[in-house]
Amino acid sequence: MKLSHRITQITGGGSDGWDVFYKARRMIADGIPVTELTIGEHDIPTSPDILNAMHAAAIGGHTGYAEVPGTHALRKSVAARIANRTGVPTTAENIVITPGGQAALFAAHTAICDPGDTAAYIDPFYTTYPGTIRGAGAVPKPIVTSPQTAFQPTAEALMAVTKGARSLLVNTPNNPTGVVYSAKTLQRIADACIANDLWLISDEVYDTQVWEGTHVSPRALPGMAERTMVVGSMSKSHAMTGSRVGWICGPAEAVAHLVNLSTHTTYGVAGFVQDAADFALNSGTAVEEAVAAPFRRRRALTMKALEGQNVVRAVPVQGAMYVMLDLRATGMSGEEFANALLEAEHIAVMPGESFGQAAAGHLRVAMTVADDQYVDALSRLIAFAGTCAGHTTRRSPRA
Amino acid sequence: MKLSHRITQITGGGSDGWDVFYKARRMIADGIPVTELTIGEHDIPTSPDILNAMHAAAIGGHTGYAEVPGTHALRKSVAARIANRTGVPTTAENIVITPGGQAALFAAHTAICDPGDTAAYIDPFYTTYPGTIRGAGAVPKPIVTSPQTAFQPTAEALMAVTKGARSLLVNTPNNPTGVVYSAKTLQRIADACIANDLWLISDEVYDTQVWEGTHVSPRALPGMAERTMVVGSMSKSHAMTGSRVGWICGPAEAVAHLVNLSTHTTYGVAGFVQDAADFALNSGTAVEEAVAAPFRRRRALTMKALEGQNVVRAVPVQGAMYVMLDLRATGMSGEEFANALLEAEHIAVMPGESFGQAAAGHLRVAMTVADDQYVDALSRLIAFAGTCAGHTTRRSPRA
Repeated sequence: MKLSHRITQITGGGSDGWDVFYKARRMIADGIPVTELTIGEHDIPTSPDILNAMHAAAIGGHTGYAEVPGTHALRKSVAARIANRTGVPTTAENIVITPGGQAALFAAHTAICDPGDTAAYIDPFYTTYPGTIRGAGAVPKPIVTSPQTAFQPTAEALMAVTKGARSLLVNTPNNPTGVVYSAKTLQRIADACIANDLWLISDEVYDTQVWEGTHVSPRALPGMAERTMVVGSMSKSHAMTGSRVGWICGPAEAVAHLVNLSTHTTYGVAGFVQDAADFALNSGTAVEEAVAAPFRRRRALTMKALEGQNVVRAVPVQGAMYVMLDLRATGMSGEEFANALLEAEHIAVMPGESFGQAAAGHLRVAMTVADDQYVDALSRLIAFAGTCAGHTTRRSPRA
Repeated sequence: MKLSHRITQITGGGSDGWDVFYKARRMIADGIPVTELTIGEHDIPTSPDILNAMHAAAIGGHTGYAEVPGTHALRKSVAARIANRTGVPTTAENIVITPGGQAALFAAHTAICDPGDTAAYIDPFYTTYPGTIRGAGAVPKPIVTSPQTAFQPTAEALMAVTKGARSLLVNTPNNPTGVVYSAKTLQRIADACIANDLWLISDEVYDTQVWEGTHVSPRALPGMAERTMVVGSMSKSHAMTGSRVGWICGPAEAVAHLVNLSTHTTYGVAGFVQDAADFALNSGTAVEEAVAAPFRRRRALTMKALEGQNVVRAVPVQGAMYVMLDLRATGMSGEEFANALLEAEHIAVMPGESFGQAAAGHLRVAMTVADDQYVDALSRLIAFAGTCAGHTTRRSPRA
């Protein structure tokens, strides 16, 4: 039986770029110990305080259908948080709660794009971006960046590629690169959106994980609040990845339509999960800082481990839970290196190529294991790269 | 800023048919007591046993990303349940877990229909059906039934309306009518699907609430397993409406594509919620029977209350948590009657017109309040209808 073109083409065909990840999982299943630095997931579970709040809400009777837009309490808390952090007036009417950030990305594109419309995004990109756009029936169009600009898009590329598009999707702090977009980059993004009459979809799920520079929400730039949908989530800020709770913040009129969409795509989010999220958001910023602290610490350990060699270079590690390593000095592709590293050292990292053509010759390393294990893995990765670079040099005369 | 045509047209324009519901909610907010017989939601919360299982899973550490297709344990339990109930061989590979039955309905239509394709459904219908089809980019086409056939579709209508369509959506036991489709009706549905090469989307979320006749899953009919996606949910069977957990059961190849879709629309379902669902499914059928018992009881009370008058007639009350009442003897529309009843008696019921043109002159009454309160409300509704019929008769000579 034939399925829709849309669903059969959602991954764009070919490999999904997660071969190394699957291979590592098979090795683990076969009893081979592997250090996994692949997934953007904390090495801590959700805090028992948050889980106890969830259980209290559930046992207290919040087990029926919750309001489809989200509970008024959670919408208010999210709005207050955004207003506090950005200075942009924001109320519950600007917020729709979604079952996670991924659902928010899909809903935003569905709300903006009709079938066949062009939706732009920045390459390198979080793995689901092009498929999310295809799933919404739109046509993904990458703005390919370069390591020379730390993977931040140029004014020229932004303006040229988004001409005729309906939306532009950006992500800062960025997954996979760990870069925090500069004020200049964000202004260029705003300029392109206004010049080409685009909606901006701003994925800010890492906004509590900033090690260098300042996170600026582009919704706060002049003329942007009316054309921006911000995607947020409890996943990364509060180690609640598995709870699947996120939101879109946008103009009230757009949010009213997004609520209609939610009625037909999800019928809302579990009330007890929303109560847990509301509890977490009202637990103070110390909680978020504690969740971010291990990555801040491991970022410093990364800088130290990279000293005294020049085969492996890091793209500026400014935010999020990843380090993007430049391995082009080895002469190997990210995929070749990641596969060789997995076999030789039993360390799993993501090839840059999994995140688009701009990140070729790079690796994304998730800083998501205990400090000792992380330093050990990183040191072995660097040593292995040194060996590879040696091999490449020896091979060169024969090439 | 312009939004997509798809999202702005998702409700089809005009009233969403829930005016009486909203009016009742406003009255309650203003402190006026209203008996609400509107929403398909149990008057009991989720069982503490299930909620304790959820909390144990969460505190035990199941708080990270769960597998996108659903946990293997839950997929296996759902598959075993379906195999046991229908006799159709079913494994975990036939199951994708979704955040609720509504998400399953949306995913099924997205998997089958490309933009502009025709998707058929039966009128009267559950409120979200046409919008779900529009949200997936397809064009909804109703098969309008009649009170004369207890709102079951005829062979002629099925065959004619589905010609050229990609999918047919059916629901038995049926919301809003409370009718359980006969074996003959289901065979006619299968015949139309095979003759017109359709996918069948079979919404069976009320399959544990059958008072008369037998529920037959059309996936079990010859030639249908390969072209059927069954939508199921924990909501109605286990009083877990607010937990948002459901599934699609379909051919393994289609499920693999549905998993790709889930990666891009929801990124899976909370692991601790899935563990709670798995616990519930393995708690035995007595739990489901206990959840269904109040509706079975109130159905008998309904039959008794209707005795000795002939203004209000019930469509056969065979399953689900609703009674569809025929009020055409009053000469009033369902909307007129529901509005008048709310004002006069402070009882909120859904006008039949909220569920399509076929149910005009009818009311959907949800049997979702305590027995005493239910009988009291129903008696007052019947008495009120008697008055209205009297009025109509008195008015007739002047018409």
